[in-house]
Amino acid sequence: MSYKAPVEQIDFILTHVVPFPELARTDLYREASADTARAILAEAGKLASNVLAPLNRAGDLHPARLENGVVRTSPGFAEGFRAIAEGGWVGVSADPEYGGMGLPQALNMAVAEMMSGANLALQLNPLLTQGQIEALEHHASDDLKALYLPRLISGDWSGTMNLTEPGAGSDVGALTTKAEPAGDGTYRISGQKIYITWGDGDVTANTCHLVLARLPGAPKGTRGISLFMVPKFLPDDQGDPGVANDLKVVSLEHKLGIHGSPTCVMSYDGAIGWLVGDENKGMAAMFTMMNVARLGVGMQGVGVAEAALQQAVAYATDRDQMGPIIGHPDVRRMLATGRAEVFAGRAIGLACATAIDLARATGDADHAARAAFLTPIAKAYGTDMGIRVADMGIQIHGGMGYVEETGAAQYLRDVRITSIYEGTNGIQAMDLVGRKLADGGDAAMRLLDEVLDGAKSAQGAHPDLAHQLWQAAETLREATHALLDRDMPARFAGAVPYLTAFARVLGGHFHLRAAMAGGAGHQALARVFMARVLPHHAGDLAEALAGADDLTGLSDAALAGDVAA
Amino acid sequence: MSYKAPVEQIDFILTHVVPFPELARTDLYREASADTARAILAEAGKLASNVLAPLNRAGDLHPARLENGVVRTSPGFAEGFRAIAEGGWVGVSADPEYGGMGLPQALNMAVAEMMSGANLALQLNPLLTQGQIEALEHHASDDLKALYLPRLISGDWSGTMNLTEPGAGSDVGALTTKAEPAGDGTYRISGQKIYITWGDGDVTANTCHLVLARLPGAPKGTRGISLFMVPKFLPDDQGDPGVANDLKVVSLEHKLGIHGSPTCVMSYDGAIGWLVGDENKGMAAMFTMMNVARLGVGMQGVGVAEAALQQAVAYATDRDQMGPIIGHPDVRRMLATGRAEVFAGRAIGLACATAIDLARATGDADHAARAAFLTPIAKAYGTDMGIRVADMGIQIHGGMGYVEETGAAQYLRDVRITSIYEGTNGIQAMDLVGRKLADGGDAAMRLLDEVLDGAKSAQGAHPDLAHQLWQAAETLREATHALLDRDMPARFAGAVPYLTAFARVLGGHFHLRAAMAGGAGHQALARVFMARVLPHHAGDLAEALAGADDLTGLSDAALAGDVAA
Repeated sequence: MSYKAPVEQIDFILTHVVPFPELARTDLYREASADTARAILAEAGKLASNVLAPLNRAGDLHPARLENGVVRTSPGFAEGFRAIAEGGWVGVSADPEYGGMGLPQALNMAVAEMMSGANLALQLNPLLTQGQIEALEHHASDDLKALYLPRLISGDWSGTMNLTEPGAGSDVGALTTKAEPAGDGTYRISGQKIYITWGDGDVTANTCHLVLARLPGAPKGTRGISLFMVPKFLPDDQGDPGVANDLKVVSLEHKLGIHGSPTCVMSYDGAIGWLVGDENKGMAAMFTMMNVARLGVGMQGVGVAEAALQQAVAYATDRDQMGPIIGHPDVRRMLATGRAEVFAGRAIGLACATAIDLARATGDADHAARAAFLTPIAKAYGTDMGIRVADMGIQIHGGMGYVEETGAAQYLRDVRITSIYEGTNGIQAMDLVGRKLADGGDAAMRLLDEVLDGAKSAQGAHPDLAHQLWQAAETLREATHALLDRDMPARFAGAVPYLTAFARVLGGHFHLRAAMAGGAGHQALARVFMARVLPHHAGDLAEALAGADDLTGLSDAALAGDVAA
Repeated sequence: MSYKAPVEQIDFILTHVVPFPELARTDLYREASADTARAILAEAGKLASNVLAPLNRAGDLHPARLENGVVRTSPGFAEGFRAIAEGGWVGVSADPEYGGMGLPQALNMAVAEMMSGANLALQLNPLLTQGQIEALEHHASDDLKALYLPRLISGDWSGTMNLTEPGAGSDVGALTTKAEPAGDGTYRISGQKIYITWGDGDVTANTCHLVLARLPGAPKGTRGISLFMVPKFLPDDQGDPGVANDLKVVSLEHKLGIHGSPTCVMSYDGAIGWLVGDENKGMAAMFTMMNVARLGVGMQGVGVAEAALQQAVAYATDRDQMGPIIGHPDVRRMLATGRAEVFAGRAIGLACATAIDLARATGDADHAARAAFLTPIAKAYGTDMGIRVADMGIQIHGGMGYVEETGAAQYLRDVRITSIYEGTNGIQAMDLVGRKLADGGDAAMRLLDEVLDGAKSAQGAHPDLAHQLWQAAETLREATHALLDRDMPARFAGAVPYLTAFARVLGGHFHLRAAMAGGAGHQALARVFMARVLPHHAGDLAEALAGADDLTGLSDAALAGDVAA
């Protein structure tokens, strides 16, 4: 396993495929020149390839463990995290006032992709910390900001997100953790939280928990949830970690993958916490945190896909079965499709990040709507694709892929979580066909217009590719209108295939842009995408428009296999 | 995890969907009445549900291990195997002359599905032993038959298949293991073999290895390979295990799944062996063994899919997130699609088995061609589907699916091997578009004619379903003709999607038959299949006909991600 960070591939997309160059023309991101971007990518790429990737296997083989209530992390992870922190990579997009680099999310996400391709388990720590920084920047009081932000951005401390409880997963409104006002402006937090990624560890001096909880008398459901900062060690007057707070790690989960990432069951037993944002407005703050994290998870899928694909290509180049198997049509089909899909996932993710940046830099509502529309697609397609490519990597290896020593299986085990956390991909798809189409399809249509315009302007240079994309985009446009006429259960029943179809068309769009801008390799890759990935959108859309009647017509008993049902 | 063997579901398919009832009208299988079938299924179902399934978790948690050169199997596995042996389940289809039941493969495969759904790691032992029995029945001398068959069929001894070597995986012809004639009718076998499933274990008194090796001066490639019986203990004059042979287990693989199945690296150091079949005709004997095993592996995919789906349905019934999640449209979509696909995979597998039986009982070449055509489809679709459904089972569980304690992840880890062993699914697909279309498409067209006839006769009762299937089958027929005009590289580049498209159409065919014969549940399930699984055949066929030019047009450097390529 030797991972080479895809610095040039990312640079190509930022330069030619997504409107990243526009950012340097805004006031906010005037520093984000092509040269700066290239320097950032090169430095982060070195860290990923040379420092983080070599630790990836040890994380799998020597999982984080709980010893006397304290989490001991995998060999080398503390040093790996120090390297991330010292490079300033926690704060790529954080506020320079508190020590951040203030660079666009597009660069932050590119760095996130490379770090997660190198070492997903370790990268989860900065990813979650970044989400916390984002939430504090937007919602915390000045005092909390001044105390926590510099320490989080520097990587001296790390941050977690405490949402899930045993009885409340995707149904966040059902959570029961309590917050009692102590009368001195602080609160006492009590309850149990599960699936807390990097809930503890020996890589930072303090672990800062953002915890969702209910104040006394708060309304039921999601409107009665508030957000609290609950640090492991209470900061003393100098802001150093002081007395231990009343919270503990109860146990660690034994997981399919990301063994190097401690997934904690946390218990809060009257722990001291500080309110972040307004009372009962915790969900808004949590969504701030989750929004960037969602895109970050999509980039995790891309990152692991790139790593798994690199290993599969290397194996197929070396493995000789009547000639190197990379020349066998079926093996080449798998690898080429994987390469084409990785490009698509990366471009969609970076387009989403750029839209977030343009929205922030310009205040333009269209950019914000674009970002909101692309986020669930980037998350779900990036991660589904990551799982698909990692699975393909195993298949390329044959029996060697099923044996753990090659590391091919680790990629699948690691990346498998990404379609589940930060909102399952089903929830992403429902967000897309529900909230993100609630504008009557405006954002979707603006995006499709761009796709159609792109196809039009590519007609001369690449008539076949342009034609295929044009047709697919038109079909998608019609399907979008048809979906808008359906009720919510019918939309939800087709949400996942609709999202997938949209991702295929977007992937085709970005491939066509790459073919227009790039050389023979990009044109060849675009042909592969149009021939092997795009055509499946027809089946996706047929399924997307199938409605829900067939599902409700099938009884629970028949679903369980009762032939008499 | 509590698995309930799908006895009624299998019985329904044998009674109404595949031509199993015809078997009882043949001389060879006149015992295979509906009542006998039902009794067999019920008994095997009890064994699977009550004895084998409860051992499944222990196999995962306590893998087989090598101690002083001897394999120690997982807790309870020895008792589990005894129960299989004592029930006569190793010899369901074996020759009654040597103690077998002499029943059709259709029943054997149904039993195999249930045993593998309950405990894949353990079921591999009888599956491989059955393959050995089949090879000996067809190719061994009477002496070898008399010595080995009764002991293998009774389950006193077990059998393995030694094909792969470090340098020779899918390219069998490259193998280098040597066989030197000893002058006394025996041979001395020397070489190393890898991936030997159940290469040793403490569940039987002897382990009989069928080993592919080269005689001195044998031609290169697959025409110079002979097959040898090489037992762990040399049988004494009474046929009891005697002196240890010169072979040993060098190591066990650390695998993604099927931890309870010892996967051995075997070393043969001048071990005594007996020739099975003619010199240099080892591949023919090995294919006999592999053919049934291929279908058996397809049924493994179906079995694990059934088990994973049962658990997912149970979880979705219990899990409450604003109502049980089984009622949520997206969750129901996943479960319903899974149920529809499991039915399709099972029906395809049992149709293939029945074709094998009819060919054997009647000697009719059309049945043999049907069996040959369906085998790669049953193997590849059954296992791809098994992986897909097990993966879906994790997704249904959300975070709980990623945590190992629920067992949802074990299903994916276990079943993941099935698309690799007994010929990767890519090789199955190449077999389909290469060898199995070498008749100019006759077998394919006969099958499609049946599908079209079925659609025609269902027009009155289920016009929509019949119409959808008709159209898909027509498209497939055209695609088949188009594929026949292509050269082999172009066919191979589209082989996997072609196989998948064929499986979708066959699945639709069997669903329509079930809808005609069964009640509301079958009709509802057929609607789900036609709405959500069948429509993807269009994309598959577009990809199947894409040719190989896009793949050869993409350089190795571009495949590796070089943007300048």
